[in-house]
Amino acid sequence: MKCRVCRGPAVIDVRRHNANFCAEHFLRLCRDQVAKAIDEFSMLRPGDRVLVAVSGGKDSLAVWDLLRQLGYEADGLYIGLGIGSYSDASGDAARAFATERGWPLREIDLRADHGTDVPTAAKVTRRVPCSACGLSKRHLFDRAAIEGGYDAVATGHNLDDEAAVLFGNTLRWETEYLARQLPVLEARDGFPRKVKPLVRLAERETAAYCVLSGIDYLVDECPMAAGNKHLGYKEALNAIEATSPGSKQAFYFGFLARAAGRFADAAPGADDARPDLGRCRSCGAPTTNEICAFCHLVDRTAGAEPVTLTVKGRP
Amino acid sequence: MKCRVCRGPAVIDVRRHNANFCAEHFLRLCRDQVAKAIDEFSMLRPGDRVLVAVSGGKDSLAVWDLLRQLGYEADGLYIGLGIGSYSDASGDAARAFATERGWPLREIDLRADHGTDVPTAAKVTRRVPCSACGLSKRHLFDRAAIEGGYDAVATGHNLDDEAAVLFGNTLRWETEYLARQLPVLEARDGFPRKVKPLVRLAERETAAYCVLSGIDYLVDECPMAAGNKHLGYKEALNAIEATSPGSKQAFYFGFLARAAGRFADAAPGADDARPDLGRCRSCGAPTTNEICAFCHLVDRTAGAEPVTLTVKGRP
Repeated sequence: MKCRVCRGPAVIDVRRHNANFCAEHFLRLCRDQVAKAIDEFSMLRPGDRVLVAVSGGKDSLAVWDLLRQLGYEADGLYIGLGIGSYSDASGDAARAFATERGWPLREIDLRADHGTDVPTAAKVTRRVPCSACGLSKRHLFDRAAIEGGYDAVATGHNLDDEAAVLFGNTLRWETEYLARQLPVLEARDGFPRKVKPLVRLAERETAAYCVLSGIDYLVDECPMAAGNKHLGYKEALNAIEATSPGSKQAFYFGFLARAAGRFADAAPGADDARPDLGRCRSCGAPTTNEICAFCHLVDRTAGAEPVTLTVKGRP
Repeated sequence: MKCRVCRGPAVIDVRRHNANFCAEHFLRLCRDQVAKAIDEFSMLRPGDRVLVAVSGGKDSLAVWDLLRQLGYEADGLYIGLGIGSYSDASGDAARAFATERGWPLREIDLRADHGTDVPTAAKVTRRVPCSACGLSKRHLFDRAAIEGGYDAVATGHNLDDEAAVLFGNTLRWETEYLARQLPVLEARDGFPRKVKPLVRLAERETAAYCVLSGIDYLVDECPMAAGNKHLGYKEALNAIEATSPGSKQAFYFGFLARAAGRFADAAPGADDARPDLGRCRSCGAPTTNEICAFCHLVDRTAGAEPVTLTVKGRP
């Protein structure tokens, strides 16, 4: 197995590119793919200040590292979600990474700063934990980016993530979500620009990137996500990818090239600025209600007894 | 397990309807679903003469039976594809079904009537056998319907078939195919109307329909189709259906309701009659070339040594 670039011994095969790479040229491939994604979708401009959503996992540490390598002024934001020992370990990984490099890492703790946490919110709302978790993260990353004057929020969504979400949205033909499932969402209506620079890299590649770069990331997956539908979609696509390498990439980029635009009118406020959007009475975030969904969640969980997780991450 | 309708002992559960049925009410459910599909998509008008594409399998015999029960003047057309003992057995099943009921069954034999067969055509064209097979069937059913003055060609495509084809077309975002993946295609440009009355029934339901109606169908699947991508798509969707019953139905009917129209302009000749369509010099079928794809296939295989299949259906 030889590196496609230098013919030296290869350390990884990338089947959908039908090629093998040595460590040096694999790392360069990753940088090039991120630079290409940023350029192709006009995600960032040179010198942009970027707030990176950092969880301590492979994708968020890789995207932070890669954005810095490409010259962007990228700071991290870690949100403590209160998911027992998983959250403890993820915070440790994020802090260790930032400290080692001397890169600024902001922190918000759901329990300390807002009086809630994901397990308690899930119990009170009687919905899957991923729902309260996603809502909280979107809200807090958006707000921190606006308040900190950042040009964009960057997340570590990779090709596998995006293909799986696209598959779920397509299975139900959720036109509103399909209209917004883009690698870049421009700033508007008080929301910051959002970018996904890793969309050209598969999950296995971001893991290899970390290993070969000496990045210590938290390998554990969130225990509360086990068994969710998203993982089922990933498995289904993995089975197809195994038979036909490149299927995921063709699915996601084919969508962007030939289908996404056909759903554009299904996006909320697609045709105009959104007259229905006001400001949250409590925090000032854009919302269609008197108070935004996050502040509503915080209100609902305010009086609830905090849920303690078992070692398996179950309430 | 009790029948949802009469509370008598049930013989089948239909998970996506979250209900069980006795034989009588299951058969009625199938009839109702076919009548509903015909009505919902304006497939047929009362008294229409229909040519049913008959293979001897569960779906084609079920659709023929159901169309007759619903009062349509439905005749069968069986095409001998020359796929060794599979074709022999499928022809036997189709003939026995028709003879028992005294219903007219037309027959075309690829080898006897056109000097070719699917295994030989696949070898000569160096493509998967399903390609030459589909091409031949579409052409011959269309031509027979036009020449016989039928109002429509009906095929036995069920919900599982349509969902799997839709999944394949979506994975590659084949906009032209997505534009035409409808349960009814109106007659135009010299092509007959085509209808799929079983789209509201799952594969397992058409099989149960046959068993409970005493229809002897050929259980074997085509040996040349083994391992094709379509079967992989079915498996992937089956895994999702097992976790979330109703997923396939939501996928297919959600597409029809909220997405198909968004691809309409990608259909060939979507905006106008097709000035590029002429008539095949050899058979008169509509085509964009001098001779149609079927006559071209026949020409190419004319001089080839016929391929003999092994017992496993492999050349």
